[in-house]
Amino acid sequence: MAAELTAHDLIAKHRPTLDQALEAIRTRAYWSPHPEHPKAYGENGSLDAAAGKAAFDALLGTRLDLGQPGTDDWVGGEVSPYGIELGVTYPHADIDVLLPAMKAGQRAWRDAGAELRAVVCLEILKRISDRTHEFAHAVMHTSGQAFMMAFQAGGPHAQDRGLEAVAYAYVEQVRTPDAAEWTKPQGKRDPLALTKQFTPVPRGIGLVIGCNTFPTWNGYPGLFASLATGNAVLVKPHPRAVLPLALTVRVAREVLAEAGFDPNLVALAAERPGEGIAKTLAVRPEIRIIDYTGSTSFGDWLEANARQAEVYTEKAGVNTVVVHSTGDYQGMLSNLAFSLSLYSGQMCTTPQNLLIPREGITTDQGPKSYDEVVADLAKAMDGLLGDDARANALLGAIVNPDVKARLEAAAGLGEVALASREIGNPDFPGAVVRTPVIVKLDGAKPDAEAAYMSECFGPVSFAVAVDSASDAVELLRRTIREKGAMTVGAYTTDAEVEQAVQEVCLEEAAQLSLNLTGGVYVNQTAAFSDFHGSGGNPAANAALCDGAFVANRFRVVEVRREA
Amino acid sequence: MAAELTAHDLIAKHRPTLDQALEAIRTRAYWSPHPEHPKAYGENGSLDAAAGKAAFDALLGTRLDLGQPGTDDWVGGEVSPYGIELGVTYPHADIDVLLPAMKAGQRAWRDAGAELRAVVCLEILKRISDRTHEFAHAVMHTSGQAFMMAFQAGGPHAQDRGLEAVAYAYVEQVRTPDAAEWTKPQGKRDPLALTKQFTPVPRGIGLVIGCNTFPTWNGYPGLFASLATGNAVLVKPHPRAVLPLALTVRVAREVLAEAGFDPNLVALAAERPGEGIAKTLAVRPEIRIIDYTGSTSFGDWLEANARQAEVYTEKAGVNTVVVHSTGDYQGMLSNLAFSLSLYSGQMCTTPQNLLIPREGITTDQGPKSYDEVVADLAKAMDGLLGDDARANALLGAIVNPDVKARLEAAAGLGEVALASREIGNPDFPGAVVRTPVIVKLDGAKPDAEAAYMSECFGPVSFAVAVDSASDAVELLRRTIREKGAMTVGAYTTDAEVEQAVQEVCLEEAAQLSLNLTGGVYVNQTAAFSDFHGSGGNPAANAALCDGAFVANRFRVVEVRREA
Repeated sequence: MAAELTAHDLIAKHRPTLDQALEAIRTRAYWSPHPEHPKAYGENGSLDAAAGKAAFDALLGTRLDLGQPGTDDWVGGEVSPYGIELGVTYPHADIDVLLPAMKAGQRAWRDAGAELRAVVCLEILKRISDRTHEFAHAVMHTSGQAFMMAFQAGGPHAQDRGLEAVAYAYVEQVRTPDAAEWTKPQGKRDPLALTKQFTPVPRGIGLVIGCNTFPTWNGYPGLFASLATGNAVLVKPHPRAVLPLALTVRVAREVLAEAGFDPNLVALAAERPGEGIAKTLAVRPEIRIIDYTGSTSFGDWLEANARQAEVYTEKAGVNTVVVHSTGDYQGMLSNLAFSLSLYSGQMCTTPQNLLIPREGITTDQGPKSYDEVVADLAKAMDGLLGDDARANALLGAIVNPDVKARLEAAAGLGEVALASREIGNPDFPGAVVRTPVIVKLDGAKPDAEAAYMSECFGPVSFAVAVDSASDAVELLRRTIREKGAMTVGAYTTDAEVEQAVQEVCLEEAAQLSLNLTGGVYVNQTAAFSDFHGSGGNPAANAALCDGAFVANRFRVVEVRREA
Repeated sequence: MAAELTAHDLIAKHRPTLDQALEAIRTRAYWSPHPEHPKAYGENGSLDAAAGKAAFDALLGTRLDLGQPGTDDWVGGEVSPYGIELGVTYPHADIDVLLPAMKAGQRAWRDAGAELRAVVCLEILKRISDRTHEFAHAVMHTSGQAFMMAFQAGGPHAQDRGLEAVAYAYVEQVRTPDAAEWTKPQGKRDPLALTKQFTPVPRGIGLVIGCNTFPTWNGYPGLFASLATGNAVLVKPHPRAVLPLALTVRVAREVLAEAGFDPNLVALAAERPGEGIAKTLAVRPEIRIIDYTGSTSFGDWLEANARQAEVYTEKAGVNTVVVHSTGDYQGMLSNLAFSLSLYSGQMCTTPQNLLIPREGITTDQGPKSYDEVVADLAKAMDGLLGDDARANALLGAIVNPDVKARLEAAAGLGEVALASREIGNPDFPGAVVRTPVIVKLDGAKPDAEAAYMSECFGPVSFAVAVDSASDAVELLRRTIREKGAMTVGAYTTDAEVEQAVQEVCLEEAAQLSLNLTGGVYVNQTAAFSDFHGSGGNPAANAALCDGAFVANRFRVVEVRREA
């Protein structure tokens, strides 16, 4: 049967986008082929808002049959953080049937070569992009993100990160030519001459272990990096956030089949409650690559135990903002207030510890004491979240009961500078919506240290009083070194302090945002330009996305003959 | 104090070579800036044969003082496989003093940037190249390689592999620009604009654990890859092969100091007999990268235990040659005879198992039975090694008593097709020189399998009778998968068999040489063109050299500000 999508057509359609992506990762200027505005969708085959919502609604209460081999049951029980039961069931796999089936198509996928694999991946991303409105609802009702964030972070931004991984994977594979003629002079004798062929070969099956909060954004880099380098990919979603990745797998399988490849190159591994199949899958010999986002404890377990696989982990970290001085006090407060509020602080990049000298800071509005800074930040957050509609649009919902429990316990850790409030969501009465809490801690007190030196994932920030700027810098260093950090922020008008913070970030390998007062926030990174994590501190052993993230997902095999 | 070597001069001197190396790794055509012929040395500051020998002789019986901090003793006791005692002593370090001292210069080395680091590395390699004759004797009298091999493999070929690593490290670091302006349109509002700086930062200290047989060739890739990416490098040589790496460290320290950097960025860790400091060093928190060549057991230990480090290992493997059919029987026999004899089979790339159908093979000289093939190969080796002078020049000496014991035991494993002979070396009466043994084994017999499915490092080959070509292909697959392989060879005129062997090598990630009958041998790889190992089978977790070998030795830290 002829493929519906020919290599020629796919290359003609997607090669320009691939080339633009390659250029973007070289220049790191702003670029994205995926529109951020919901109204940009609805033409050229993409679903508009109404059609996307209808597509999502039509999924509720259904069985999502992906046509996978080895399906022995149907599982699922997602309950939206907004209170509705999704009622979608997914294939549960007999992995002794599914894993061998996933290997069957690998040779053809390998032989397709780097360029065809890249454009097949781009076709998958294009079809996902066309369904961005549908995915937005799926991400919203699994992660608890507010709609607009689910739309953007779960849609175009996630697609950007997937495309970025494809671009890195492509360029890495074509660094070595397909063939070479090698001729070595031998003085007066005939030269030695060899013909060499070089083939990128996959490692095997990549396992993507998804997370609850950003199923697509955190899932796509590993999925597309592994697929583009010739591997099959098994997607094991978080049990509370299956739908966005199941839809992704469905699109991938469709495109693979239409392009003449085995759809089983991409498959879903949904699980029964408490089944814990990640642990079983992670040590299977067929699994040679693992991409994981989640808790430090399981990430560490994977690194120690999945020895047959290359393991890429994003774990917990403690993100710090050093607040030393600013030339734009109001800008700083509103920027920080937004950063702490966005998605109820449930981003791996949300600041947790605000290090503020106990003697206060200098600002364009005069000196501000520690207490004033904290009170003004609390006020800025109150202002930002004072309107319930705006608060709902910014906060989203609390993703799961653990986060809610942590938030409630945080008030007991110190003096509460800003109490968490419950907010009603008129559209979703079952939604659990809470504003963030800010707790004051004295950095010099050992019992306070136990709090601020642990990740308290969720809408909880600590305003940590420190003795001096250099005390802040040293605490920053220790926090990154011992706990890891996905992000670091700093506000200072002092060149020496700036230099000291920068040096700590260079030495401890943490990504630094300086003096953000406008519409860019420390917790946001843009694909093709910003690195997400550094891979050099305990929060993550890989960065999104760089050469190291893709280079070891394949190997190059050389066949040489006498010419 | 002004640096004697300025950045400007170093770049002017070495940038053209770096550019040629970058071009070579892209095209993988033949290239080397390091002459292979001993007579090419003696001008432009390089030592000729006599001067190199004199320099080596002058080292004997001396203390090699590298000026390292924390030196608490002088150790050394190398005995040449050619029978002479070197009598050189080296600094023994208090690592609690040395390791912190190695970190002191790291900031300046990081701030130097990728290009300056690269040309400093090239200056180190240039000075090593100038002393190639001296290094040749040092390699010969530690590894037991014959002089010409020690000269070439220990000199220009090792320098090539070092330069290749520098080229890969350089290009990997400059994939991300130093800075970027990022401007994101916001419709009618002002665009978001950020200025971003990107800095490659080192992981820390790289540890190079050297081997006995190829101290420079196997040591240089890791040493230069780590150094060029901004790390300090601690070199822990094999206790029997300290001198070549100690000389390397000396040159590196000289060049670093002259270029205005801290010489302690490169240091030596020699050890007392039985001290086993590799195990202690490998788990030190300062050590963030390890490059290791040696036994599988210690390589596995490093991978499991040195969790704070990126670990690159080259371990044992079982190399196979499938002998199915040939259009040049004599060419095949002489090519194989040379491969099996070179350095007494003490290369990690030397074939061990020759898989030959028990019904025999077809050749340009008519069908040959299994027994005939084995007998003819034995005859070819007898011819090649019949002259003692030529035998000495090809075989070198047995590197250590373990190899000798293994060789002697091998005769008991099966029917001996070619017995090992003792050969005298008129220049070095104490040299232990032995010709290889070929042992016949029946591939179908379980007790034979125990022999051919283990690495028997040294001048031992097994002529394994197999049932058929497809039996050979399956045994090849199983051997690579279970034991790993640095090299695979095959002789066949049958397109289907060739295809099957090639497919196994692609699926199991092994480097394949097909139908070599001339002056290129399966055990030799050329830098800039051939990959050494694949990093995809159990023999080695990395290939020399590719993007994956360098990409994770540094991380990129981003600092962003509003524009």
